[in-house]
Amino acid sequence: MPQVNRQLRLQSRPKGMLAPGDLQLAESPLPELKDGQALAQVKYLSIDPTMRIWMAADTYLPAVAIGEVMRSGGFAEIIESRHPDYKKGDRITGLTGLQEYVLIDGAEKRFFQKVPKIPFVSDTVFLGLLGINGLTAFFGMEIAQPKKGETLVVSAAAGATGSIVGQIGKIHGCRVVGIAGSDEKCAWLTKDLGFDAAINYKLPDWRAKLTAATPSGIDIDFENVGGEIMHAVLDRMNLHGRVVVCGLISGYTKEDPGLESFATVLVKRLRVQGFIILDYASRFMEAATQLGQWKMFGKLKDRETIVEGLEKAPDAINMLFTGGNTGKLIVKL
Amino acid sequence: MPQVNRQLRLQSRPKGMLAPGDLQLAESPLPELKDGQALAQVKYLSIDPTMRIWMAADTYLPAVAIGEVMRSGGFAEIIESRHPDYKKGDRITGLTGLQEYVLIDGAEKRFFQKVPKIPFVSDTVFLGLLGINGLTAFFGMEIAQPKKGETLVVSAAAGATGSIVGQIGKIHGCRVVGIAGSDEKCAWLTKDLGFDAAINYKLPDWRAKLTAATPSGIDIDFENVGGEIMHAVLDRMNLHGRVVVCGLISGYTKEDPGLESFATVLVKRLRVQGFIILDYASRFMEAATQLGQWKMFGKLKDRETIVEGLEKAPDAINMLFTGGNTGKLIVKL
Repeated sequence: MPQVNRQLRLQSRPKGMLAPGDLQLAESPLPELKDGQALAQVKYLSIDPTMRIWMAADTYLPAVAIGEVMRSGGFAEIIESRHPDYKKGDRITGLTGLQEYVLIDGAEKRFFQKVPKIPFVSDTVFLGLLGINGLTAFFGMEIAQPKKGETLVVSAAAGATGSIVGQIGKIHGCRVVGIAGSDEKCAWLTKDLGFDAAINYKLPDWRAKLTAATPSGIDIDFENVGGEIMHAVLDRMNLHGRVVVCGLISGYTKEDPGLESFATVLVKRLRVQGFIILDYASRFMEAATQLGQWKMFGKLKDRETIVEGLEKAPDAINMLFTGGNTGKLIVKL
Repeated sequence: MPQVNRQLRLQSRPKGMLAPGDLQLAESPLPELKDGQALAQVKYLSIDPTMRIWMAADTYLPAVAIGEVMRSGGFAEIIESRHPDYKKGDRITGLTGLQEYVLIDGAEKRFFQKVPKIPFVSDTVFLGLLGINGLTAFFGMEIAQPKKGETLVVSAAAGATGSIVGQIGKIHGCRVVGIAGSDEKCAWLTKDLGFDAAINYKLPDWRAKLTAATPSGIDIDFENVGGEIMHAVLDRMNLHGRVVVCGLISGYTKEDPGLESFATVLVKRLRVQGFIILDYASRFMEAATQLGQWKMFGKLKDRETIVEGLEKAPDAINMLFTGGNTGKLIVKL
């Protein structure tokens, strides 16, 4: 039995990008298990933009307190159990936090779910395609109500969520246009994932390219970024378009860019819907079943960017905001 | 038969408030009626914030062309007809334009509707409570889906639409808080219309008063103003709140203030829905019937600000943006 747990604890609330020391490596002893407790070893950590929100302030979840283990999703395996729901060898996902071991105590709610071992499928699929990102894409597209022939634009399209959103759009028969931060990412979207077009927003003429790629306007904006990119997309929206507000990462490490103009929402009668995946917890299995089926039939492809070592997690979080990852970003322990 | 039609024509697109000469008085001859035409004498003009949008640019309707009669709602009476649908004495509402007479030609679509003479009810009710404002309030509140006990905040609350919105909120059992621009308007809202509270946004402590008046947060924002006021309301929204975007008048005569932060839409999972009343044209009679019934039973009260003379219409339009009117603003010809 391990006796020491290495953890990343929040030492200071970052200003902008994470600075060295905002998350600090600490060791804490692992106590003997009591009745009703189980101990799981964390194998993979899910690195997600929303972690930056959790560091900043109370929002849809309370902010992580200073000194507390940083909250994160993760995949873990039960190594010892005196808990009625878990036995040694059980595999779980949920909010493990950035640490090597997670102590499960009674009925605590960290959204732990047991997951099966699927032959020929990597365990990390439960963090990405069958995890938070696949579920987010699935329910976000339910809100979007895509119709055949409509044009869907997704920002942060080469990210873990955006890449699945676009593929679900193709399943529904939409014209799908992705916005991403490099030519390489754009090539992945169009050549491997079947997007109809992809725009590198770092090129000076990206706005003209967005216009050219959306000749019939835009019916659905699946918004992951906000700010300037969102504004350009809103400018091209069709009447009665839908804006699914899934993320606004352009404002997570910089001052909130707000929205230059709100008039489009009125004159184009847009429906703008913010959503947080935790509201859909009771329907996760339904969505995972559908996503798994699509993956099995080759309709959904995924890619991962894997970083090794707990101590690399802070850099990994920053990668999300510099565009360093393609697809799901994972820290392997 | 009259031979001359006095009209206000758009001479230049206003910058900010209307300047003298943006709308210019002109006279044009009234031709002999041909088969399929009718002539109506305009009795009342409806003065609405959206007219400022129509002067500026193509949006949900084409902009009024330079030199064209300024578009507006109005109430008119048929004085001569060779049109199969109209006979002398028929009373109509629709987009008469800012002029003394309106020539109706064939099947042209200016949303003309015949309206009845109702004993003890002023004809102007068909411009306000049973016209564009009542209809807007009715369908906007349908989008809002108010539930008993929820808190509704409406901005421009003493305006023609806002005052009806709040009263419909009371019919649905909501706590209703209005935001308006003077103590006198606020007193009208709470004492005469039954609003639970009203905030004068020109007082320095209006934000604190808004907080105090919404102890359980805000479930519905019926937004007529946008900008700073909208932002303060969004800050108090509850989870899964609804924002009905009916108007954004703070940006009609000044630079569009945009929205300082959009993050609230995400973290509070708000549904933001823009709407334009013309989309509901096929259901106007249904709504007018309900509104008429509510008025008959004393559940809806209205007030009018009446200005006399076609030449006063430009000043009347500006009054909308300086808070000069309470209730429905009408120009009587």
